[in-house]
Amino acid sequence: MSGTAGQVIRCKAAVAWEAGKPLVIEEVEVAPPQKNEVRLKILFTSLCHTDVYFWEAKGQNPLFPRIFGHEAGGIVESVGEGVTDLQPGDHVLPVFTGECKECPHCHSEESNMCDLLRINTDRGVMINDGQSRFSIKGKPIYHFVGTSTFSEYTVTHVGCVAKINPLAPLDKVCVLSCGISTGFGATVNVAKPEEGPTVAIFGLGAVGLAAAEGARVSGASRIIGVDLNPSRFNEAKKFGVTEFVNPKDYDKPVQQVIAEMTNGGVDRSVECTGSVQAMISAFECVHDGWGVAVLVGVPHKDAVFKTHPMNLLNERTLKGTFFGNYKPRSDLPSVVEKYMSKELEVEKFITHTVPFSEINKAFEYMLRGEGLRCIIRMEE
Amino acid sequence: MSGTAGQVIRCKAAVAWEAGKPLVIEEVEVAPPQKNEVRLKILFTSLCHTDVYFWEAKGQNPLFPRIFGHEAGGIVESVGEGVTDLQPGDHVLPVFTGECKECPHCHSEESNMCDLLRINTDRGVMINDGQSRFSIKGKPIYHFVGTSTFSEYTVTHVGCVAKINPLAPLDKVCVLSCGISTGFGATVNVAKPEEGPTVAIFGLGAVGLAAAEGARVSGASRIIGVDLNPSRFNEAKKFGVTEFVNPKDYDKPVQQVIAEMTNGGVDRSVECTGSVQAMISAFECVHDGWGVAVLVGVPHKDAVFKTHPMNLLNERTLKGTFFGNYKPRSDLPSVVEKYMSKELEVEKFITHTVPFSEINKAFEYMLRGEGLRCIIRMEE
Repeated sequence: MSGTAGQVIRCKAAVAWEAGKPLVIEEVEVAPPQKNEVRLKILFTSLCHTDVYFWEAKGQNPLFPRIFGHEAGGIVESVGEGVTDLQPGDHVLPVFTGECKECPHCHSEESNMCDLLRINTDRGVMINDGQSRFSIKGKPIYHFVGTSTFSEYTVTHVGCVAKINPLAPLDKVCVLSCGISTGFGATVNVAKPEEGPTVAIFGLGAVGLAAAEGARVSGASRIIGVDLNPSRFNEAKKFGVTEFVNPKDYDKPVQQVIAEMTNGGVDRSVECTGSVQAMISAFECVHDGWGVAVLVGVPHKDAVFKTHPMNLLNERTLKGTFFGNYKPRSDLPSVVEKYMSKELEVEKFITHTVPFSEINKAFEYMLRGEGLRCIIRMEE
Repeated sequence: MSGTAGQVIRCKAAVAWEAGKPLVIEEVEVAPPQKNEVRLKILFTSLCHTDVYFWEAKGQNPLFPRIFGHEAGGIVESVGEGVTDLQPGDHVLPVFTGECKECPHCHSEESNMCDLLRINTDRGVMINDGQSRFSIKGKPIYHFVGTSTFSEYTVTHVGCVAKINPLAPLDKVCVLSCGISTGFGATVNVAKPEEGPTVAIFGLGAVGLAAAEGARVSGASRIIGVDLNPSRFNEAKKFGVTEFVNPKDYDKPVQQVIAEMTNGGVDRSVECTGSVQAMISAFECVHDGWGVAVLVGVPHKDAVFKTHPMNLLNERTLKGTFFGNYKPRSDLPSVVEKYMSKELEVEKFITHTVPFSEINKAFEYMLRGEGLRCIIRMEE
């Protein structure tokens, strides 16, 4: 056991005191892990839209002060009672959703939506005792999605931690703990394109480009990128995107444009914007008889998906996915191995790096739509 | 070759002269089969809702005089030029949709929606020459979906004929050429329930009961039948339906009733009514994480399927199917074998039998909602 096991650790964390206000690096106290919990030393974390979304808290339930962050790589510092799968020194990726290995979802081969540890953006405390492990001078600071990786040390449920190959560079594979796996898995696990398919990707942000990467790795013959921002096409070529369609350039629905380009429709489509209109287009642009559309983007709460049922009866399939259908503990290590074997290229997603002290720059890049992923180095 | 090969055959057919008016048994002339066509002697045919629907021609393009009928069993009388797969004497099921074996759909393992021979309810002629093979005193009588089995002899495209085991009793397996295979295949080929699943079936007519039969054969632990008509439940028990839900008995949506009965939703659902509200309920009643809903019923042309996209993102799958995803020529013989091996029970679908001269009785039974399938014996 490390010298800090069982003790409160004092370390630096980036605290969001108020919605939309820059994070402040503070000294926080991190309590030891309790039953079924582990305390991690975070080495690298990156910023994902979901952090920004809940930090802005527009239309969300505001929960502050809070420590955001959920894409990260680190090392186990100590483990709580009952933890047998992990030990200090293990290299890990914390994940915003978990795998208890005991509920019907964990027992299902299909699902990764664990009953116990499924993502919960409203809960700011640990499930073991309903308390936070973070405090500043005794005042609790809320957790975020069970990970709170914008801190040198954090406490997570053991079910939200994937143990990975210790040879994997954490400054690269940290991005696999959310967005990249979400997009990549949507294609390889859910859309499951077979040899030589045509694939349309709606939305060319990091998740959409990861979906394109999944199509490239799967041997897609054509990858059609759809985005309202034409400047994204150049970047997208690196991810295997072969053609670009901007819905604004046409007077007809984009699904019709794509059907005309592909002799009736693409074999697979993956929707990564969250716009319900894009979801409908992504569904209606797949070929009858065998086309599969996969929805990834999170919609507005009042959104309604509408289509004529004949589009379904003509043997199209519509599926949604969550975290690329990966079970965090069981499956994420194999995604890291895909990087290690150079099948999945992670470097091209990493466009910026900043030291922890400049974490607010990562927010600025994202708000300006600049780049894909910004790595935040916890050790300066 | 038979003695009639190459000659016009004069025989009896039940002609629909006008929408909604009783059929009239007439003497018709049936021309010899042309290139890629076969002429069949029909021995048994049965009545399906689709015949009645186009006979009533409410909102349809009326095409009369016409010979309806598409569920049938018969024997090849003669074959046209280029037909090598079939020969006189073969036992066959004519099918309302075809399989050319050359188009992308026929080459796809997933699809059965042949580009050349996909169902076409508006076409009343043969595709080879745009002419009818039926006439009365020189006046052409229109075909229906390429089969027109309400005739002692009919001409079909070779791609719309499944050659089956000659030992199979045609008076039973004739019902496999449409509705029963549609429902059965929707479950076993598309919903694909694994061991011990819970299945909900919407609509307990012949197609829905065939879907239930598919669930029974697949080892479903619970089969929940949903219908607005409670009298159907007793009959449905024979098909493995274990529980009955009448949406009229509840103040809340039936999907919520089913979710409460099944700890979150059924594993699979199959919609066999064509009502868009039932389609939405069938989709929303499947369990998150792994549930699959399959749509079979043909909707109204103005119907709109609506759901909140989160119902999809929570890892539900929505698929449509056509003719149970069976390729007529390649797959239907194996469905007949399922009957021969007593796995699929066909007799229980057959509730009435009438001689050809009383074919209008079959229409009366169906219009009164009486029974499931009425077999029409062509030979008195």
